[in-house]
Amino acid sequence: MRGLILALDVYDRDRALEIAECTADYLWAVKVNWPLIIGSGLKIITELKQVTGLPIIADLKLADIPNTNRLVARRVFDAGADYIIAHGFTGRDSVKAVMELGETIIVVEMSHPGAKEFIQPVTDGLIEMANELEPFGVIAPATRPERIRYIRSKLKDNIKVITPGVGAQGGKAGDAIRAGADYIIVGRAIYESENPRESAREIFEEVRAWS
Amino acid sequence: MRGLILALDVYDRDRALEIAECTADYLWAVKVNWPLIIGSGLKIITELKQVTGLPIIADLKLADIPNTNRLVARRVFDAGADYIIAHGFTGRDSVKAVMELGETIIVVEMSHPGAKEFIQPVTDGLIEMANELEPFGVIAPATRPERIRYIRSKLKDNIKVITPGVGAQGGKAGDAIRAGADYIIVGRAIYESENPRESAREIFEEVRAWS
Repeated sequence: MRGLILALDVYDRDRALEIAECTADYLWAVKVNWPLIIGSGLKIITELKQVTGLPIIADLKLADIPNTNRLVARRVFDAGADYIIAHGFTGRDSVKAVMELGETIIVVEMSHPGAKEFIQPVTDGLIEMANELEPFGVIAPATRPERIRYIRSKLKDNIKVITPGVGAQGGKAGDAIRAGADYIIVGRAIYESENPRESAREIFEEVRAWS
Repeated sequence: MRGLILALDVYDRDRALEIAECTADYLWAVKVNWPLIIGSGLKIITELKQVTGLPIIADLKLADIPNTNRLVARRVFDAGADYIIAHGFTGRDSVKAVMELGETIIVVEMSHPGAKEFIQPVTDGLIEMANELEPFGVIAPATRPERIRYIRSKLKDNIKVITPGVGAQGGKAGDAIRAGADYIIVGRAIYESENPRESAREIFEEVRAWS
């Protein structure tokens, strides 16, 4: 199964709810991150679940010591999040602290230029960690399909590959899916569209065509 | 100048304000992190400034792409934070996105066991980044004074060394200061004390004795 994840990288609660509701038919899940949580409080997670009926991914990029990761993750899972995204580079203990509380997605590579400095050189080590801990999935950038293919080839079959970077950042949904992505994350190309529902439908069709 | 930073790693707004107020006489700054911000909203930063009159450090461990780091940092600086702690691991562009908006502290090493897997092997690279970008300061663990000494020796003089891990995690204030720390961060040893004001005073005296 392949699917589309809406990245709600906006501050405003009303706008977030409106876009999520009108696009929900074409989504597998909705992803929220700190800007929206700061702007709307953790209750936005519950509200998004209510209006969409979909799983919610909290993209916290958790990267602290195990105790702090645990304190944050507990609150966010309690608020109704189904998945939390955590960094792998802070080590196995920090990741395990999140996995013990709920479904976790580990960042093994990022899409921005700065990721080349310290993260990409250890992507193999992060993949090895993922194969050992078996989280729900890993994050790999859709902007570089050859990296999706590489990461997919090294990763156990039961671990999903989830890819941001489709749309505004330049990645193509079809390319990411063909390279082995299970779920693609799209933000601006949907929420900045004049017709978010139609834009979501088009990307959904592209994902389905390649699945 | 040396000083003591109170780490308010608690969820509860009232408790946070009470402890900050009764210990403020002995503090250089107050540090808040995600658990407290989630529990109390960003307004806790303004409230802590009001009751203590001290600088507030937002320990967000930001570790996202530049655009997301910027969106979060803008909100948190707007709420009154004087410093934000960001990871260096995500690369120069992500760190610069925070530094352009306000005073930044870069993590170059962490105190938990998992930090040995991916962060410590690149601490030299992170120190080099700090020397190039010249943030307000860097985070180095008080649990390993020899690492504070090493990091201080490699770092430009105008960049402060700020060290968590004193107290409950086993580090000693005097050892950290003698090794070259400018500011030490203490959490549980103060806020879990039966007499937080007295505990803060004792650590303050220890810091002053070695300054």
